[in-house]
Amino acid sequence: MINRLCEKIKELKAPVVVGLDPMLSYVPEQVQKKSFAEYGETLEGAADAIWQFNKEIVDSICDLIPAVKPQSAMYEQFGVPGVAAYKKTVDYCHEKGLIVIGDVKRGDIGSTSAAYAAGHLGKVQVGGKKLSVFDEDFATVNPYLGTDGIKPFADVCREEHKGLFILVKTSNPSSGEFQDRLIDGRPLYEWVGEKVAQWGADCMGDSYSYIGAVVGATYPEMGKVLRKLMPKSFILVPGYGAQGGKAEDLVHYFNEDGLGAIVNSSRGIIAAYKKEAYEKFGPEHFGEAARQATLDMIVDIGGALERAK
Amino acid sequence: MINRLCEKIKELKAPVVVGLDPMLSYVPEQVQKKSFAEYGETLEGAADAIWQFNKEIVDSICDLIPAVKPQSAMYEQFGVPGVAAYKKTVDYCHEKGLIVIGDVKRGDIGSTSAAYAAGHLGKVQVGGKKLSVFDEDFATVNPYLGTDGIKPFADVCREEHKGLFILVKTSNPSSGEFQDRLIDGRPLYEWVGEKVAQWGADCMGDSYSYIGAVVGATYPEMGKVLRKLMPKSFILVPGYGAQGGKAEDLVHYFNEDGLGAIVNSSRGIIAAYKKEAYEKFGPEHFGEAARQATLDMIVDIGGALERAK
Repeated sequence: MINRLCEKIKELKAPVVVGLDPMLSYVPEQVQKKSFAEYGETLEGAADAIWQFNKEIVDSICDLIPAVKPQSAMYEQFGVPGVAAYKKTVDYCHEKGLIVIGDVKRGDIGSTSAAYAAGHLGKVQVGGKKLSVFDEDFATVNPYLGTDGIKPFADVCREEHKGLFILVKTSNPSSGEFQDRLIDGRPLYEWVGEKVAQWGADCMGDSYSYIGAVVGATYPEMGKVLRKLMPKSFILVPGYGAQGGKAEDLVHYFNEDGLGAIVNSSRGIIAAYKKEAYEKFGPEHFGEAARQATLDMIVDIGGALERAK
Repeated sequence: MINRLCEKIKELKAPVVVGLDPMLSYVPEQVQKKSFAEYGETLEGAADAIWQFNKEIVDSICDLIPAVKPQSAMYEQFGVPGVAAYKKTVDYCHEKGLIVIGDVKRGDIGSTSAAYAAGHLGKVQVGGKKLSVFDEDFATVNPYLGTDGIKPFADVCREEHKGLFILVKTSNPSSGEFQDRLIDGRPLYEWVGEKVAQWGADCMGDSYSYIGAVVGATYPEMGKVLRKLMPKSFILVPGYGAQGGKAEDLVHYFNEDGLGAIVNSSRGIIAAYKKEAYEKFGPEHFGEAARQATLDMIVDIGGALERAK
């Protein structure tokens, strides 16, 4: 899957992933109204609204980008119907040829991580059958529990040719509270990054490992260091746009082959119609606004990479 | 909710929580067969099997213990039907008067943690309505992202009188890889523990904070230190039994009031019928085996606490 990600990024000239994080407040009123008319102001209604919203977003951008990243929290908050909308979204994105990064940030002790890994990336044994479940292509994973928590995911990735992005340095303001603390003179995120490189060494695709890292766009100096520390690990970069990360800051997250990183934008794309720059589209054309914002993001990042050459 | 947990522990003399982690391999064949006969060897079939299994376990032990801890991974691995079984389990446990600790180990950047917090502990806004979703009483949370990731959960807990258990020192063998690394001479888990105490100071119940910690039974020396570092935080202690933690090691997780800790056992209880000590019950009486194992665990821990007085 990491090979396919590399190919698609090269083909589309777009190291870009769109975060499908459909807060209900991003969903235009006409979409919400229609879903509520059918299902009431219920979890089913909310789940239908985010699914209809996603569908139009995906239809509008699927030819531009290699991958999407649905954030499980935004679905799980609507309970069982929300989780069903998550699964429907994953399947629909696959139909449209997109790679799906499940932003689930799971991570637990060994046997429990094995269950998450089976459910999200692998197959579960039910009686005599092996069944695919959520079937994302990549999942994000939390490293706090160490190797035991990661290994079951890595095992499934090897078997299924899927991949991981392990949290190394997150994009949020307080990420430094623990992640930046110095251990033998080096911040914790570097130690985690080094482990990601080690874990990834056993999981190599053609040029990159199946096991990548999450490094926030909001900490470019750290991104630069981590890029060198994990040369074969793809970096998933959240925090561009709405959270403050800028294209020129992100060039150091990439390797000289122009690969090695994929930059995420969520609300900057899916709620573009609410931004001044795209408000001309209006809420009824939120898909077109998302398309334009995606095109602009691709140009923004492509330009920065070009200038850095 | 922390007050209710304290009361129930005192009333039942049982600082014990049973982990409802129904791996399909724990579910006796007769239960699986019945579910598969009705739903086929499908995710629905697996979900029904674990639900039927849970129901009998809960019926067998609900009068003995204050709380249960369903592990979300074991449900999520069976997809949407599995998540529906999780929700059914939470609701059924509530009907039976049990406190429910959702072992979800979520944690993300602020806005995303807010969605998890709303979905698991709070309410979501859908149109003009505020709806409860999974509605557990406590949730486990991962601290790697720092205060931003915790605050939205704490806010919901204050509003809803619910609670958290934040991972401090986990029970798995490799938990030390990052958690034990020294920062200014003290291990990371102590820094996290100190933060838990700080976060918890704003969320006080009568004697304990709503915001507790997870400290594995497998590291009793560390449990002793953490007990002192977080005197007002309840400690959820996984790792007793199957993972190797012993009752006499756990006395230091408690305060002098006999409270402050709640010890979890999962497979040691729910799959007791598979253990030599309880195999006389046979797979058809797995509920009774679980009941006996629960009674034995309560005696074991109660005895150790008594001897330590």
